[in-house]
Amino acid sequence: MPELKLAIDAMGGDNGPSVVIEALINSLKQDTTTQFVVVGDEAILSSLFSQFELSDHPQVTLVHAEQVVEMTDKPGATMRQKPQSSMRVALDMHAHGEVDGVVSGGNTGALMAQAYFILKPIPGVLRPALMAALPNMTGGRSYLLDLGANPSCDSETLFQFGVMGSVAARVLESDKNVSVALLNMGEEELKGNDEVRNAAQLLGQSEHVNYIGFIEGNHLFSGRADVIVCDGFVGNIALKSCEGLATLIIDELKASLTSHWLYSWFFKFLQKRTKKSWQRLKPDHYNGASLIGLRGVVVKSHGSANATAFESAISHAIKEASHRLPEKIQDRVESVLLEQH
Amino acid sequence: MPELKLAIDAMGGDNGPSVVIEALINSLKQDTTTQFVVVGDEAILSSLFSQFELSDHPQVTLVHAEQVVEMTDKPGATMRQKPQSSMRVALDMHAHGEVDGVVSGGNTGALMAQAYFILKPIPGVLRPALMAALPNMTGGRSYLLDLGANPSCDSETLFQFGVMGSVAARVLESDKNVSVALLNMGEEELKGNDEVRNAAQLLGQSEHVNYIGFIEGNHLFSGRADVIVCDGFVGNIALKSCEGLATLIIDELKASLTSHWLYSWFFKFLQKRTKKSWQRLKPDHYNGASLIGLRGVVVKSHGSANATAFESAISHAIKEASHRLPEKIQDRVESVLLEQH
Repeated sequence: MPELKLAIDAMGGDNGPSVVIEALINSLKQDTTTQFVVVGDEAILSSLFSQFELSDHPQVTLVHAEQVVEMTDKPGATMRQKPQSSMRVALDMHAHGEVDGVVSGGNTGALMAQAYFILKPIPGVLRPALMAALPNMTGGRSYLLDLGANPSCDSETLFQFGVMGSVAARVLESDKNVSVALLNMGEEELKGNDEVRNAAQLLGQSEHVNYIGFIEGNHLFSGRADVIVCDGFVGNIALKSCEGLATLIIDELKASLTSHWLYSWFFKFLQKRTKKSWQRLKPDHYNGASLIGLRGVVVKSHGSANATAFESAISHAIKEASHRLPEKIQDRVESVLLEQH
Repeated sequence: MPELKLAIDAMGGDNGPSVVIEALINSLKQDTTTQFVVVGDEAILSSLFSQFELSDHPQVTLVHAEQVVEMTDKPGATMRQKPQSSMRVALDMHAHGEVDGVVSGGNTGALMAQAYFILKPIPGVLRPALMAALPNMTGGRSYLLDLGANPSCDSETLFQFGVMGSVAARVLESDKNVSVALLNMGEEELKGNDEVRNAAQLLGQSEHVNYIGFIEGNHLFSGRADVIVCDGFVGNIALKSCEGLATLIIDELKASLTSHWLYSWFFKFLQKRTKKSWQRLKPDHYNGASLIGLRGVVVKSHGSANATAFESAISHAIKEASHRLPEKIQDRVESVLLEQH
């Protein structure tokens, strides 16, 4: 297999390029073959490269980009307004075949819009989708899509998300035979809206998906399904609501445990003792949402990711690129289209 | 004010009539004026009444109903198939003006369908909605609607949910000047789908709602808004996803803390010490989803509610009935319709 090459947008994310460089250094400790192209402001990056002795590293190169897509930029306008942004330069390199994938922690809307126009969807794919892993109670991961790339989806699009999601989850979960479910407000056939009911029909009829039916929100973390499909509006709100609840619980726990030195001591004890088990639930380990359905590998890191989290996004991209995920999705989509016609 | 009278469906809920009777006994300790009509199987209830010395209680009467709506019954069919169910008898009494409200822990779909046909919507109301309280980080409550009565909603319906929700939350929160937000996948004006964007226009223009804009899922528990509006599909999935996450967190905490006798001891210690603060978050205290927009007061208790939780649903219904919530919603809806035309 030829050497893998990954472009990293070093300027995206709230924590600046130093976090990205720290993540890269960690990745380099595990991975001695992948080539990393770090894209961003040359002055800033050169200085970080010297500081961390990356300047002559055989796996690392620097590509200058003079603009940065800010979190506040309007996604649709960044193509025209910032043709020299680090995000754009990384995606252009991917479109020209110079790299096998892109990782960015920048503006999600801009990344989705630019990736769509620069890389283009896989033939036959109606809409690309954003997919991320969630921890589940079996100790494994479930994959949820769409997380916000498509606010409204017709049944055919939801069906395709099931198809693409099962191919992607299989690659990320080492060839596991993944099950697919539709997120709905009940498990009975008649529940929900027309879109999910019709998508259920399509998924149930297809030979290319291991479809197990509707699941409700309380099974998002139960491990009942490996891939959970919904439209981007629902997926975004489900995930962010959970984020809100987690914040509430942690705040409440901290407040009640730090109100007295004794509790505070217990809290520290607790943190140590439960570290291993909580480690598994930490968002860092689930960082990296894959934009699937495009002719390329694009992984979005959370804007506020730390080095561990960004490293996880990098490893997602390496997995997808080394397994040639876009080609696998294309093959499956072609089979599905043949099945339908 | 004339004496308040409440019908309680004693046969709904997974835990049987004894939980309902226990809740009633607790309510009677706080409330010495409300009349409670307990509806259900006479043989079972008479025996419970004797056991708990309720037979001659001046505030309690028993009304026999020979059928029970089961959790597995098809909601739409229960009207025809079980005309003598405890749920139906309680709702009929309300429709005939014999009681001022109904509390039931029975089949949600059946309760919504029967309440709709028996009590009818308030004139001008497009769709009734299911609304429940959530704890928030300010120590107060936020109200979320719709929770599943309406899988899809147009913008006018979402707008009305904002209007009705703000009247209801004000009654339940002792005349607080409540703020209303729309749940969306972003806070910017252009985010989301046509329904929420158009509903935002309507809410923004109305003098009858203190509309504060879009909020994302992570603000469900932050207390930023008092009333949070979404369609029933999104509300149901957001709430159940949070339920799923809470289960995951609690399981993980328990597993990691009970793996050794020492941690197990710590866990018990912890439970005691944090009781006060967790008490506030316990679902019991938020039990009781109000079906608003009907010509009557209907409160749905969770099927698995214990006595404390069912008591909370009873107290919701008393508050709504004593404040004449349906009339207040009707007045507000009329003003809104005048404003629009």
